[in-house]
Amino acid sequence: MTETLQTAVAGVTGYAGAELARLLLRHPRLKGRPPVFVGRVEEKDAARGGIPLIEIHPQLADNNGTGNLRLEPFSWELLDARGVEVLFLATPHEQSRAWVPEALTRGLRVIDLSGAWRLTEAANRAVYAFEDEGSEQAATTQALAVYGMPELHRSRIAGARLIANPGCYSTSVILALKPLMAAGLLDLSRGIVADAKSGVSGAGKAPTAKTHFMYAADNLSAYGVFGHRHTGELLEQIGIGANEIAFTPHLLPIPRGILSTIYVHFQQAQTHASIAKVYHDFFAASPMVRFYDKALPQIQYVVRTNYADIGFQLDPSGRRSVIVSCLDNLLKGAAGQAVQNLNVMLGWSESEGLE
Amino acid sequence: MTETLQTAVAGVTGYAGAELARLLLRHPRLKGRPPVFVGRVEEKDAARGGIPLIEIHPQLADNNGTGNLRLEPFSWELLDARGVEVLFLATPHEQSRAWVPEALTRGLRVIDLSGAWRLTEAANRAVYAFEDEGSEQAATTQALAVYGMPELHRSRIAGARLIANPGCYSTSVILALKPLMAAGLLDLSRGIVADAKSGVSGAGKAPTAKTHFMYAADNLSAYGVFGHRHTGELLEQIGIGANEIAFTPHLLPIPRGILSTIYVHFQQAQTHASIAKVYHDFFAASPMVRFYDKALPQIQYVVRTNYADIGFQLDPSGRRSVIVSCLDNLLKGAAGQAVQNLNVMLGWSESEGLE
Amino acid sequence: MTETLQTAVAGVTGYAGAELARLLLRHPRLKGRPPVFVGRVEEKDAARGGIPLIEIHPQLADNNGTGNLRLEPFSWELLDARGVEVLFLATPHEQSRAWVPEALTRGLRVIDLSGAWRLTEAANRAVYAFEDEGSEQAATTQALAVYGMPELHRSRIAGARLIANPGCYSTSVILALKPLMAAGLLDLSRGIVADAKSGVSGAGKAPTAKTHFMYAADNLSAYGVFGHRHTGELLEQIGIGANEIAFTPHLLPIPRGILSTIYVHFQQAQTHASIAKVYHDFFAASPMVRFYDKALPQIQYVVRTNYADIGFQLDPSGRRSVIVSCLDNLLKGAAGQAVQNLNVMLGWSESEGLE
Amino acid sequence: MTETLQTAVAGVTGYAGAELARLLLRHPRLKGRPPVFVGRVEEKDAARGGIPLIEIHPQLADNNGTGNLRLEPFSWELLDARGVEVLFLATPHEQSRAWVPEALTRGLRVIDLSGAWRLTEAANRAVYAFEDEGSEQAATTQALAVYGMPELHRSRIAGARLIANPGCYSTSVILALKPLMAAGLLDLSRGIVADAKSGVSGAGKAPTAKTHFMYAADNLSAYGVFGHRHTGELLEQIGIGANEIAFTPHLLPIPRGILSTIYVHFQQAQTHASIAKVYHDFFAASPMVRFYDKALPQIQYVVRTNYADIGFQLDPSGRRSVIVSCLDNLLKGAAGQAVQNLNVMLGWSESEGLE
Repeated sequence: MTETLQTAVAGVTGYAGAELARLLLRHPRLKGRPPVFVGRVEEKDAARGGIPLIEIHPQLADNNGTGNLRLEPFSWELLDARGVEVLFLATPHEQSRAWVPEALTRGLRVIDLSGAWRLTEAANRAVYAFEDEGSEQAATTQALAVYGMPELHRSRIAGARLIANPGCYSTSVILALKPLMAAGLLDLSRGIVADAKSGVSGAGKAPTAKTHFMYAADNLSAYGVFGHRHTGELLEQIGIGANEIAFTPHLLPIPRGILSTIYVHFQQAQTHASIAKVYHDFFAASPMVRFYDKALPQIQYVVRTNYADIGFQLDPSGRRSVIVSCLDNLLKGAAGQAVQNLNVMLGWSESEGLE
Repeated sequence: MTETLQTAVAGVTGYAGAELARLLLRHPRLKGRPPVFVGRVEEKDAARGGIPLIEIHPQLADNNGTGNLRLEPFSWELLDARGVEVLFLATPHEQSRAWVPEALTRGLRVIDLSGAWRLTEAANRAVYAFEDEGSEQAATTQALAVYGMPELHRSRIAGARLIANPGCYSTSVILALKPLMAAGLLDLSRGIVADAKSGVSGAGKAPTAKTHFMYAADNLSAYGVFGHRHTGELLEQIGIGANEIAFTPHLLPIPRGILSTIYVHFQQAQTHASIAKVYHDFFAASPMVRFYDKALPQIQYVVRTNYADIGFQLDPSGRRSVIVSCLDNLLKGAAGQAVQNLNVMLGWSESEGLE
Repeated sequence: MTETLQTAVAGVTGYAGAELARLLLRHPRLKGRPPVFVGRVEEKDAARGGIPLIEIHPQLADNNGTGNLRLEPFSWELLDARGVEVLFLATPHEQSRAWVPEALTRGLRVIDLSGAWRLTEAANRAVYAFEDEGSEQAATTQALAVYGMPELHRSRIAGARLIANPGCYSTSVILALKPLMAAGLLDLSRGIVADAKSGVSGAGKAPTAKTHFMYAADNLSAYGVFGHRHTGELLEQIGIGANEIAFTPHLLPIPRGILSTIYVHFQQAQTHASIAKVYHDFFAASPMVRFYDKALPQIQYVVRTNYADIGFQLDPSGRRSVIVSCLDNLLKGAAGQAVQNLNVMLGWSESEGLE
Repeated sequence: MTETLQTAVAGVTGYAGAELARLLLRHPRLKGRPPVFVGRVEEKDAARGGIPLIEIHPQLADNNGTGNLRLEPFSWELLDARGVEVLFLATPHEQSRAWVPEALTRGLRVIDLSGAWRLTEAANRAVYAFEDEGSEQAATTQALAVYGMPELHRSRIAGARLIANPGCYSTSVILALKPLMAAGLLDLSRGIVADAKSGVSGAGKAPTAKTHFMYAADNLSAYGVFGHRHTGELLEQIGIGANEIAFTPHLLPIPRGILSTIYVHFQQAQTHASIAKVYHDFFAASPMVRFYDKALPQIQYVVRTNYADIGFQLDPSGRRSVIVSCLDNLLKGAAGQAVQNLNVMLGWSESEGLE
């Protein structure tokens, strides 16, 4: 078990990057070893040694020295000089696609929060239109990638050199469905519906017409119907076909949090106890999932935590169920899960620094 | 065609009642004939001639005389004395259940916004546990009731003495599904999912743990899974069985508006044009429904209007569709539809006073 | 009194422009004569006869023909051809500055919603840094401008050719203070504080870091301290010196509405009745101001109305008062007041089309 | 310096109580010694050993044993049996008033979050109308109370047996003004204005008309003008007269956070540097205050932290300033400050468990 190590973060300017910075700065194993923050920095800022992190995220300011942390110009040499061992990428997928092969060559371990390396099927990757799609390098890199959901792939993550950190919606839906699928209970012929709703931070930090307060507030809208990028992750990780699930994301007028309402049919009538047992067993060793035996989870209970909360209600017939799955899109749906992956990768306690 | 007439409103203290008051006060056909507002009034308020309406709803204040309107103690004699011809009930269903038979006996026409008289099947009414269930009077009254959705029952509403104004969720889901059902397109064997989300005004004006700002804000929660009262309306009006639809309401952190995301399968592959034609034809004579041919509707476009907005997206296979249906729960979902029913009942233009 | 006339609107794409469109389209005097909408239009849109208004503002869609309205490329010739008599400018102040002299030359009457022509003192205009500051044309035009607050300048507005429609914050503060100032009650030596809070629509439609949902929601921030552009209007209209008032705007996490909390000292002890009389008398002929004798106004009561609501509370000493002034920044603070000015200008009822 | 000790919390059901529970449960010095939670518990709950804390506050659930914590029926015997040394009261002031004398007699140290013991002047206490006002016991108890603001009374807190934890608004205003007052800079003859705005959690957990989502959302309202209970704390702690400050609280449509905008006059012209130095010096040893030298603080930067953020802007004349002070009303304004007081009282690091 590694005592500690040096991390770096590229992409700290976004919402997930800011959460990642916060988590790593207070992680008990990384005390006194703040991440190296790297990215695009203009000349005039490079000249002053980088941009103070608290200019970018004033909420990171505390009276314990974070005032000295800076976003420095990215270079492989800088990472070398600082002895970086694990590189977090909270960058756009194009960037991750470009950087990861080089990082692996240089012996870095990478935890990539983008969608660059999550999908093993070319058909599912098509929606990203990667420039290097089909190249040998891309294939080699993809082969090294482990889908970073500890609840499904704990042992493979432990030895991985490249973690493809899951999408926020994907995490919410996969955790709810995988246990039922693995238990062979689902009647796929009648189709699954995953109706998901996310807070605005999921839409990114760039000011756009859709992230304008006047658009998002007092509103609700569906988008990406039959075409959202996270769909491929659902298919591959749950193990179902494209026609067996309908996934619709919505933009909620709240800062953060995802709630997915999932509708399934069972092959045979179930009882509340039989379904509860499936979830209990599946997540018995998973400290970051909370199964609700009685009530249904709500967004307010998971926001600012790394928990995924799952509950369900059964139709009187026992043949249908509505499952509700909640998480914080910036934590269990992004930065928190990334740190959870770091913990598993290094043999640390899975929930360390996440409570 | 009636020139004008005298209305009365019971239940003006709630949100739907307030909207109803606003609409009736500015209705072109009712100029100079404000509704009589009746309800429970304490002695000390009765002594001063009732409670000024603007003490109850300050937002109704204008500089045109609304300051003189009052909520007066309910009595049949008062309604007689004022020559009331149409009585709106925005009261709890128990109240509507108790008052409607007497009102009909006295020759009043009634538009009831509660759930008291919407359901023709005893099994569907069970969820309300009406005290007079099974009585002859209840059966006679129910037989007179017309479900007040002009898009489905325009001609029957015209002659009705008792209008059962539909539920807010029901309106949203029925308008989206009825055209497809009537056209015989739906594959019911695979089930319909109606995932509905409503603003907080739908939960009523009583301060409760669930309507507390701290509960509702920055949150989303599902409720009434497999058991919401509006389900019976869906079954009866769409003409489907209880096992053929799963309906889940959610509480949105916004004041008003409903968006329903509805998932259907078709018996045969459809095109965008074929589905669009079904909707266009069905709503050709319906001024209060807006069909979106290209985009999907959003809550922000219907709030504070009486429109129901409907749009859809088709799966590439043509065999599945996601339909999005939006309305303002206090208008098309309550008070606005009530006024629309009044218009139809009296032979006025259907959208009069609703634009 | 003019029966009707042809209007045009430049700047319909913004929030105030959209409200203006809505108001003019339903104004009883303008039935059947929708405004000509003009602005910058790209070639490809010009080629299709302009941009349909409902593509820009879907919420304007109704089933009464608004679908045919279009934003057309601006030209003086088009305005001539359509017989435009009154031109509304909901454009940036630079645009208004450039267009107004030409419009007046061509005999158009102009109601300008920007800050271009509100200020008579060069010192107060300095904050705008107008390019044509000091030119003869600018001076001539300014001399024709009437500050468009009917409650203060009703008779001059009636004959005006150029109305400078007031700022939203300014309207809120001036209406609260002018009556007390005119009555000679204020002790200016102790200073006035105007602490104002506005919804996000006041920050404009452009997506920026400050209008991002993640910035505005769950937040409150002060800005423009000792330097907001609306300050000059306060000084000129109330008739006080820059050191006699401190005005601080704040960005509220709501779509619309302004509440100003104003702190004053009186030269002599007042009673509640003496202050109330001052307000009653001052606004006796002003249908768009509601004076609250007992309670204090709140934003929720003015939103989506053209009312300015004013109330106050007196210190037991009678020497200090807190005045609360509310309005909807897009209506009484912009488009509504513009229509009110149109009404006054043309001798129509002041509140026509505004209820 | 005490190694650790046993705490108890009365009043865990409210918002401040929940935050207090969260802070104490994760406090490094209290690991393995969770507080004893006491309060009113019905017979049937007492029979099952009290109410599980996670039934009251589901968000406290984690996978580390909080599921076993319970709210137990209050009794002095229970506190004795558990060896409680410090009792936190997050109870209504009447309760605190009744319990504190007995607690002190029994040798407990008390940190009281209510307004019961904050005020030394009878005139300022009048607004509370305490039943035991004027009694010898009350006077004796009051004499033992220390106003729990470490930035002002650090050394007295260290030895105190009874801490009167400050009000949320009071903390926000006092921290902004005390440094300037202590430095003798303020011109009180022109009056101070403190315009404060608070999130809804400040209004308490009871569902009321004012805390209903429909009242608070999309709204802003002033209340308690010239009469809020926190005023007395301002007078006593800052050392000014009632006529020298006007304090107006407002209800913001956000869950938590306070921003106070404070207007002062100086006796002599100041520079930005001279004022900044006053704040720097005053808070040099105060880890929980962040002074903003350049920007102004905003609510979003303090929410969910125990920091009080203070910034200011100076009028060009140097004679007037606007000071902006922000904090989280449930943390630095309540539970966080209570833990800060615990730390100071026991000689622990002042910010321990608060970062």
